[in-house]
Amino acid sequence: MTAISDYISKHKDRFLEELIDLLKVPSISADSAYKEHTIKTADIIKSRLLEAGCDTVEVCPTDGYPIVYGEKIIEPDLPTVLVYGHYDVQPPDPLDLWDSPPFEPVIKKTDIHPEGAIFARGACDDKGQMYMHVKALEFMTKNNQLPCNVKFMIEGEEEVGSVNLAHYVKNNREKLANDVILISDTGMIANDIPSITTGLRGLSYVEVEVTGPNRDLHSGLYGGAVANPINVLTKMIASLHDENNHITIPGFYDKVEELSNEERAEMAKAPFSLEDYKDALDIDAVYGEKGYTTNERNSIRPTLDVNGIWGGYTGEGAKTVIASKAYAKISMRLVPNQDWEEITELFKTHFESIAPAGVKVEVTPHHGGQGYVTPIDTIAYKSASKAYETTFGKTPIPQRSGGSIPIVSLFEDQLKSKTILMGFGLDSDAIHSPNEHFGIWNYLKGIETIPYFYKYFTEMKS
Amino acid sequence: MTAISDYISKHKDRFLEELIDLLKVPSISADSAYKEHTIKTADIIKSRLLEAGCDTVEVCPTDGYPIVYGEKIIEPDLPTVLVYGHYDVQPPDPLDLWDSPPFEPVIKKTDIHPEGAIFARGACDDKGQMYMHVKALEFMTKNNQLPCNVKFMIEGEEEVGSVNLAHYVKNNREKLANDVILISDTGMIANDIPSITTGLRGLSYVEVEVTGPNRDLHSGLYGGAVANPINVLTKMIASLHDENNHITIPGFYDKVEELSNEERAEMAKAPFSLEDYKDALDIDAVYGEKGYTTNERNSIRPTLDVNGIWGGYTGEGAKTVIASKAYAKISMRLVPNQDWEEITELFKTHFESIAPAGVKVEVTPHHGGQGYVTPIDTIAYKSASKAYETTFGKTPIPQRSGGSIPIVSLFEDQLKSKTILMGFGLDSDAIHSPNEHFGIWNYLKGIETIPYFYKYFTEMKS
Repeated sequence: MTAISDYISKHKDRFLEELIDLLKVPSISADSAYKEHTIKTADIIKSRLLEAGCDTVEVCPTDGYPIVYGEKIIEPDLPTVLVYGHYDVQPPDPLDLWDSPPFEPVIKKTDIHPEGAIFARGACDDKGQMYMHVKALEFMTKNNQLPCNVKFMIEGEEEVGSVNLAHYVKNNREKLANDVILISDTGMIANDIPSITTGLRGLSYVEVEVTGPNRDLHSGLYGGAVANPINVLTKMIASLHDENNHITIPGFYDKVEELSNEERAEMAKAPFSLEDYKDALDIDAVYGEKGYTTNERNSIRPTLDVNGIWGGYTGEGAKTVIASKAYAKISMRLVPNQDWEEITELFKTHFESIAPAGVKVEVTPHHGGQGYVTPIDTIAYKSASKAYETTFGKTPIPQRSGGSIPIVSLFEDQLKSKTILMGFGLDSDAIHSPNEHFGIWNYLKGIETIPYFYKYFTEMKS
Repeated sequence: MTAISDYISKHKDRFLEELIDLLKVPSISADSAYKEHTIKTADIIKSRLLEAGCDTVEVCPTDGYPIVYGEKIIEPDLPTVLVYGHYDVQPPDPLDLWDSPPFEPVIKKTDIHPEGAIFARGACDDKGQMYMHVKALEFMTKNNQLPCNVKFMIEGEEEVGSVNLAHYVKNNREKLANDVILISDTGMIANDIPSITTGLRGLSYVEVEVTGPNRDLHSGLYGGAVANPINVLTKMIASLHDENNHITIPGFYDKVEELSNEERAEMAKAPFSLEDYKDALDIDAVYGEKGYTTNERNSIRPTLDVNGIWGGYTGEGAKTVIASKAYAKISMRLVPNQDWEEITELFKTHFESIAPAGVKVEVTPHHGGQGYVTPIDTIAYKSASKAYETTFGKTPIPQRSGGSIPIVSLFEDQLKSKTILMGFGLDSDAIHSPNEHFGIWNYLKGIETIPYFYKYFTEMKS
């Protein structure tokens, strides 16, 4: 299959241009102001899948943003790969920290990406990584190299919890039947250290509101005499971690899977430099749960982070006010066996219980999902590993990720098949951050590697 | 001097219209977007002072907003009253909580103001209260009732710390020479319980910034492994109060004036209903420093309140981000003997010292001012008290306020004269809050009372 590298050489400019076009559309699912753009993106995906060789593609309406479903069935008895990805993106804020506008893609070289990288919101997460699969399909269909059946399911609500996708999957189990689910929405360690993600954390995302007095008050006349919702909120949030950075919510750790020392020793073998990590983030020290390493803290341990906080006067200058309300968005990353709905309930009960007299507290669950661990002794994992070996010349390292793709656990429940997380992005690609980017080398390497997965998987399944 | 009530009856509609015109100009000193409006307001004040009878009025430029100075000297040997007020207003945010636009004044009746109140930003603080003095002057000059000399000094930066006024006062001590300073920028207990403010708290206002990683991070990939600036900020702020709501900054209480039990017992005689207080704010409990009553907490005790907090994603929906930075605006109200510059320095040193490894912390002082206590055995206080007795039919109660007028202490230092705080607003007037208003009855009662102060003060001084 050297044909694939030839095909990529010949068409890479077009592959880039097509991705850049896709990145220009601000499909921000979290913000209803971008509704039209988000819907338009689904239509673009439909056209691209048809051009790449799908026999049929539908834009399936949901209560939220539509799901694009496409398929090419060449022979019902052959294995079927279901590709999942998403066309929605994270909000780009804070805009002032972007070096170029988030929806005007530019190519720039970086130390890590000497061949250049595309800078734009969604470049890596997930438009770029999803579109590798579309271009891999194009290669396979145009060159008569597709060895099995393929189905695509590309949604527009991954960044807001995939609520409607869950309904869709439950209602379309037969249509979505497959032998393996393939997703590129994770990363790898480095361009010369390929890795395959074997675990994802679960997620519980909530918003909290603390209400004190029924109106904003003058801090001179009322300061010190009434509960200030911001001060109270900081005390409540601060109390969620103890002095060892353990989370204090009663029951939070009850179901946490504890890894054996052997497993932890195995994990510790992955290449990692704490100095490089700190330098890259410009921090003088890491911070986290006592008793665990950095790589354990962000993968096998559950965490609680405030993702946003606001209240009172935040404009220029000074205003001596006691706000009536203060708010925070809080997310918890969960590990296998922690149930996100149960954790959300534990949070809500605890957070409301610690509210002092003088304020009212409301906790609103946003969304969530279960964690996931994929075994490495399956045909699917072995096929993926061999595909990387072929194109990278190295065996990929199995690695647990700290991120969440809440829908993966539901796929297994509903569709009874395993998911392979073949990610080609890097941690430094700044997904969810200003200046998100995706290396051109990585994009093309993904397109090159994916067809080998199809080939090996079909061979091993036969 | 029944002439004054006749004069008010005859001109009250015009008095109201003039104030409403003044309230239409958004003179928000904290926000440079309103610069033109703020400067324009100074010019309006100049015209109004000339119309009211000042012999000369100047708009004195400063490094910030100008100070309007006017005077009417009838006889150098007679006493001189210096009136101080401010034409700038607080920012009106949050705008969505206003029932009518903050700079489109409307008159509405309320339970407390059955004669109607003017709703607008600055209605009470301080355009309305300042303008009472202009109209009182008008009455005295038009009716040949001005018994002494009068000087006006109306500034445009009270809500942002009066930095340039301080320079102006220091450089114009002779010009501003006076026998008493008269200010209406405080409140009274109720329309049937007149009171005179005898104490003000000092103020130290700072902004803090906590920086963690050099960019916003994905909370899945980094959550739990690096210091989250928002979580850290909440812990740092929470630690500023102990379990008894004492402030934990070392040295903070060292110079606090402790009142005797006798003085506290005297204070406790002021009419106050805790139930009414809680009902008015819709809170189920008050909250504050252990060992002190509500009226003590907000007057004779120093406090620390967060006035604003922000960081991370605060838009619609969810974003799983660890912010690079988190911010808060924090103010401390101080009591006599606490030096605001010293307290600011104590705060800065302490706050920076409690930053954990993994973040950088910056504290930027905004502004501040000393507290003030006025004695009640002076001619000035007795004249004010007698003026209230004349128009309210009741002896006003001397009362310490929790608010701050940072410049008052500087007036005493530089001009060697005492300040009398004759306020006619009510706590429920929502100054610094949405729907600020000022009772028409209070506005006219102020105009009626002020000339009696001039009369009694001149008589007692002779």
